[in-house]
This record gives sequence, C-alpha cells and structure tokens, in this order.
Amino acid sequence: MNRDAILLTPGPLTTRIETRRAMLHDWGSRDAAFIALTAEMRKRLLAVANGRDSHVAIPLQGSGTFIVEAAITSLVRPTDKLLVLVNGAYGERMVEIARRLGRAVEALRWPENCPVEADQVEHALKADPAISHVALVHCETTSGLLNPMRRVAEVVARHGRALLLDAMSSFGALDIDLATTPIAAVLASSNKCLEGVPGLGFALVEQETIIGAKGVSPSLSLDLYDQWRGLESNGQWRFTPPVQVVAALVEALRALDKEGGPKARLHRYQDNFNILAAGMGRLGFRLFLEPSVQAPIIATFHPLDNRRFDFERFYAALVARGFVIYPGKLTRAASFRIGCIGALDRSDFKRLLTSIEAVLEADAS
Amino acid sequence: MNRDAILLTPGPLTTRIETRRAMLHDWGSRDAAFIALTAEMRKRLLAVANGRDSHVAIPLQGSGTFIVEAAITSLVRPTDKLLVLVNGAYGERMVEIARRLGRAVEALRWPENCPVEADQVEHALKADPAISHVALVHCETTSGLLNPMRRVAEVVARHGRALLLDAMSSFGALDIDLATTPIAAVLASSNKCLEGVPGLGFALVEQETIIGAKGVSPSLSLDLYDQWRGLESNGQWRFTPPVQVVAALVEALRALDKEGGPKARLHRYQDNFNILAAGMGRLGFRLFLEPSVQAPIIATFHPLDNRRFDFERFYAALVARGFVIYPGKLTRAASFRIGCIGALDRSDFKRLLTSIEAVLEADAS
Repeated sequence: MNRDAILLTPGPLTTRIETRRAMLHDWGSRDAAFIALTAEMRKRLLAVANGRDSHVAIPLQGSGTFIVEAAITSLVRPTDKLLVLVNGAYGERMVEIARRLGRAVEALRWPENCPVEADQVEHALKADPAISHVALVHCETTSGLLNPMRRVAEVVARHGRALLLDAMSSFGALDIDLATTPIAAVLASSNKCLEGVPGLGFALVEQETIIGAKGVSPSLSLDLYDQWRGLESNGQWRFTPPVQVVAALVEALRALDKEGGPKARLHRYQDNFNILAAGMGRLGFRLFLEPSVQAPIIATFHPLDNRRFDFERFYAALVARGFVIYPGKLTRAASFRIGCIGALDRSDFKRLLTSIEAVLEADAS
Repeated sequence: MNRDAILLTPGPLTTRIETRRAMLHDWGSRDAAFIALTAEMRKRLLAVANGRDSHVAIPLQGSGTFIVEAAITSLVRPTDKLLVLVNGAYGERMVEIARRLGRAVEALRWPENCPVEADQVEHALKADPAISHVALVHCETTSGLLNPMRRVAEVVARHGRALLLDAMSSFGALDIDLATTPIAAVLASSNKCLEGVPGLGFALVEQETIIGAKGVSPSLSLDLYDQWRGLESNGQWRFTPPVQVVAALVEALRALDKEGGPKARLHRYQDNFNILAAGMGRLGFRLFLEPSVQAPIIATFHPLDNRRFDFERFYAALVARGFVIYPGKLTRAASFRIGCIGALDRSDFKRLLTSIEAVLEADAS
C-alpha cells in the first residue's frame, strides 16, 4: 500500500514500491554483485532502444542536465559547431550549456506549440557547412510536444552531421530504434518513463562516436569517454556510483520488460492521457497543444477562463487530496501540467478527475 | 536484520536500515514536503561543522568528485592560481581537475605516508603571490592519513589566500569547526562518515566567497553559485534532485545527532580502528601509516610477508564470509584497506577478525 501522494509530474514521479524496495540494500561499488548490476543496467538500456549492435550505454551520476552537458562537452569539439533545434525550455538549456562551455552554437527556434520542421533544419544545414552536430529534444517536457525525431534524424544523417537526441521524457515509452534511426547519442535519465528513482542519467552513444571522443572533455566528472573506458576496463564506475539508484533502475528495467517493453508502456500512458484529456475537457480545461503534436507524456492545460481560478490554491487543494501536479513552464501563456507517466494507470486518473471536480465545486460554492 | 555483506570500504558503506527505509517513498521535487527535507538537510550539514553563521550549504547531484570539480570550476577564476597539497590519489585528482579545466595549478607533494607540512606551504605562498587558493585533503582516503588541517588553514589565512578543504573522508567524524578555522569551502559527500547512501555531494562555502562566485563556472551543471541562488530563491533544486538520496541523508543526519554528533561518532570509529589494528597486528599484518598520522577512518595494511598471501583470494574468501574489504590505492607499495566507518561497531570488527583468522588458517593448511 502506497500512502504517498500520487505524483502527476514530469519526474521524479510515482514509482512502484518494488522499485523502491530494491534500495533497501548496501553494495560495495567494486564488488562483483554491484558490477553485475551495472552490467545488467547497461545491457537493458541498450535493449530498450535496440542499440546493442551499434551503441554503448554510459551511465553518469546526476540529473538529466548533467548527462546533456556531458554529451555536449564530450562529443562536440572546440572546433565543431552545434545547431540546437528549440521549441521549449530544454532546447534553450542546451543552447545555454554549449554557450557557457565556449562551444560554437546556433539555435533554430519555433513557437512552444509548434514542432521542429525537418525542411527548415535541412535548409540550415545546407546554408552552414560548419555545423557538425544537431541537438533535438524528442518530447519537450515544457509542453509535452512530440518533435518529428525520425524525419530530423534522416535529414541530419543525409547531410553527414551527428544528431544528439535529448530523450529525457520519451525514453522507455516512445519508440526509439537505433538500428533503423541514425542517432549519434541518445540522452535520458532514470526517473521518467523508465520509472526509476532520480540520481543518474545515461547516454547511448554510437561506438565510433565514443571512440572519437577521447580527450575532448575539459571536465573530468562529465567526461563520457573516460566514463565508458572505466566501465569497459573492469566493469566499475570511475567515481562512487549511486548504488541504490542503480539497483532501483535495474528493478525498473526488469519491470518494463515484464510489462511488454516501451510499446506496452506507451499504451498505458496513452490510456492515462486519454482519460485525463477527456475528463479535463468535460470540466472546461483546454489543452495547450493540438492533438497532432501531443505526446501522451505530459498534458499542458490552460487555466480556466474564470477569474476565480487560482493555480496555487488549486495545487494546494489537490495536494491535500493526495495528488501533486506541476506548474507550467511556458514562456508566454499561463498554464499548468499534469504528467501521465509513472507507475499509474487509468484508475489513478479517474480518482484525480473526481478530486479535481470536487475542488472546483468547493471553489465555486 | 541486515543480511547484506558488511562493507569495510571507504564508501559506499554499510548504512543503517532506517536510513535505507527512508527511501521507500516518492517525493515531488517542487512540493512543500521535499522543500522542507532539503532545508533540513542544508541546516543540519552546516551544524555538523558549526558553520551556520559564516557559511552556506550547497548540495550537488553526483559523487564526491563532482562536488570537488564544482568547487574548483566555480570558485577558482581563470585569473586565479590553485596550489594543491598532494600526498595521495585525491590530491592528485584535484590537480588533474584544475589542469583539465585550464586553471593555473601547481602541486606541492609529499610521500603517501607523510603529512602535508604547514611550513612548506607557507614557504610556497611567500614565494608565489599569484597563488590565490590552496586545496588540501583532510583525510587522504588513499592511505587513511590525517593531514594537519588547522595548521594549514592558519597559514593560508595568514597569507590572505582561500582554502578549499576536501573533507570527503572526514566530514561527520573528524572535528571541523568553521567558527574557529578559516576555510573558504568544505567539500564532502553523503556516503562516508555521514553514513548516508551515495548520490550527492555538498559544499559548505563562506558567504562572501559564494557571493563572489557569480558567473565564474563555465559548467551549468556544476555551477555552485547558480545552485545556491536556486535553493535560496524558492527552496528548490535547479535540476531534478535525487529525492530518495536526500531523504536518506536527512535520516542519517538525524541519527548522527542522536548518536551525539561527530565527537561520539569519532569515538565509535576509533574503537573500531583500535580493535581492528590490535587484532590484525596479532595476525601479523602491519599498518602502512605511523600512529601519529593515522586517522581512525581507513586502515591501510601491508600484505603478509608470506609468499602464500594472495590478496584476490583473501578478498574472495572474506566476501564468502560476508565481509567486503577494499584494494589498496598506493602508487608504490602493495597494500589493502579496511574501512572503520559506516553503521558498524566493535562486534562487527571482532567477527571480521575471527573470519580473517579462519581464512588465513584455511589458507595455511
């Protein structure tokens, strides 16, 4: 029985109790038992994206931003140039990371409710041969928008550039097939659609790309090449790993497998989203995104067109009923977000809708 | 009942089951309950080193190396110069971090069994006015050696330079009093003498020092100034925190308080060390360090002067009996290490000694 609040957030999110129970042990980071856990984690991460023949899995301590920065600092050389495709806060963050690191970087921007357009990317690549890498956010957590990853990947590959894919909010649910889609590096973390606990990110990097990354990163901690070499040499992490977080992720990856893999998980999330969207619609809330670009991961809603509606009060009333939702992150429109991911199913969303209805009624009376 | 192996390592180490049970929950990272946990953690960390009036506590995702790199990249400016006092692998690591980041750095070196000498530090500071920062490892995990931190801090302060103290293996047990010892930044992690689980480090930074660190770090993830400002502005972490690791650390900090603070904890570790050292001596093992420089944190032993003694076999035989020890990290001498820290007391060390004796006897027969 889980008496914690239900987290309807982009992560950290509600995990299975079995996942958390996997953390009830201690492991020596250099001992065989933990080396085996790390190896299983790396193998399973590659399998999720069908990358066993082409890519290597490199876990890294820290949050999603750490692995994104590690990929930029380790894979984009000082003589390279990065084009970031931006339609939300996480695209902007990659621009900021590259700029602070002193890497040549440009951004191509779209409004927060519009997908990246592959033909404009192609135009930009033709116009600037100096661009060596392109960075794309698969599912923008800012809004829940799904970018056309395959089309962008094809364009980038056709022009001989390397794609860095921020798959933070998609990995484990939305389809990523490294055997058929040319992606130099996929970046994600333990605590979103994989339903692990937060504390580590990982990169799935093309074998040739990681071999070429030796000596590139000025950061010791964030050096993906060194991290990879360390793991390959003796199965151990270079620096103290978050052993319990790793154990939880392994348990969560086993559960993903049992559920039927990313396809089955996406189906559950889509079901969660459908129930949420229909119910919220009945209560008068409008979705921010058009259905054609909406991933069933995060739903962004406009506030009610009602002077009484106060998000902070709404949030607090839902917390009191055991549900944690998320504030918006859009730059222009007022909004709030409800995550459809985590160890939740339609029954949780039905209860949420009942609670939201009650909160609105109490507010109106 | 804890049926895991007993970890006699420098960390991750054996934690209390209550500490691990604190991870059985989920938290929304922006919700009030987790904001309160973060605030309690920061307050308690400052209290451990008596730094509430002078310093701020800045937690950071990742291992100990991440917080050391964060301090160097955030506090040592490109126009500054760092002097690292080296008598082990963790001093060398700070030199490597600074060098890779392109910071001006010099090392003053001592043998791995000799403490840093304050008068030589003074000589170096007089000779080179360009040195702005001095980095010292309080207790070198490489060997277990205790450096004369107070004397070095006084010399560094008298010459108007800033001290960065790597207190990874000492924080929570060895005395660090920020009210009476001039230290610009103390760096440590969750999973050593604090007996939390691994996954985060923290810096206790002098208030004036952190205010001056704005815009210094080229790394977004490792920027201590931004991390501090984020926490101060709304109590939230900038990027997804390892919520369960934070909860475990708060539980571990409460337990440290209940035990009687660092003084009581040091007393328990000293007792562990004394029993270990005496028992190992009876079995023929010699300590690597002289008693005058030995901290009761990690004991480094020479292998037995016996051709039969094979460390890998010894290690495996002890694992089979439920004890995980640690390989040596000395550059010249063959050695192995046994940690005296973690949620262990004299009864664990007595059982260890019985097992070691049995393993040696089985080996000799």
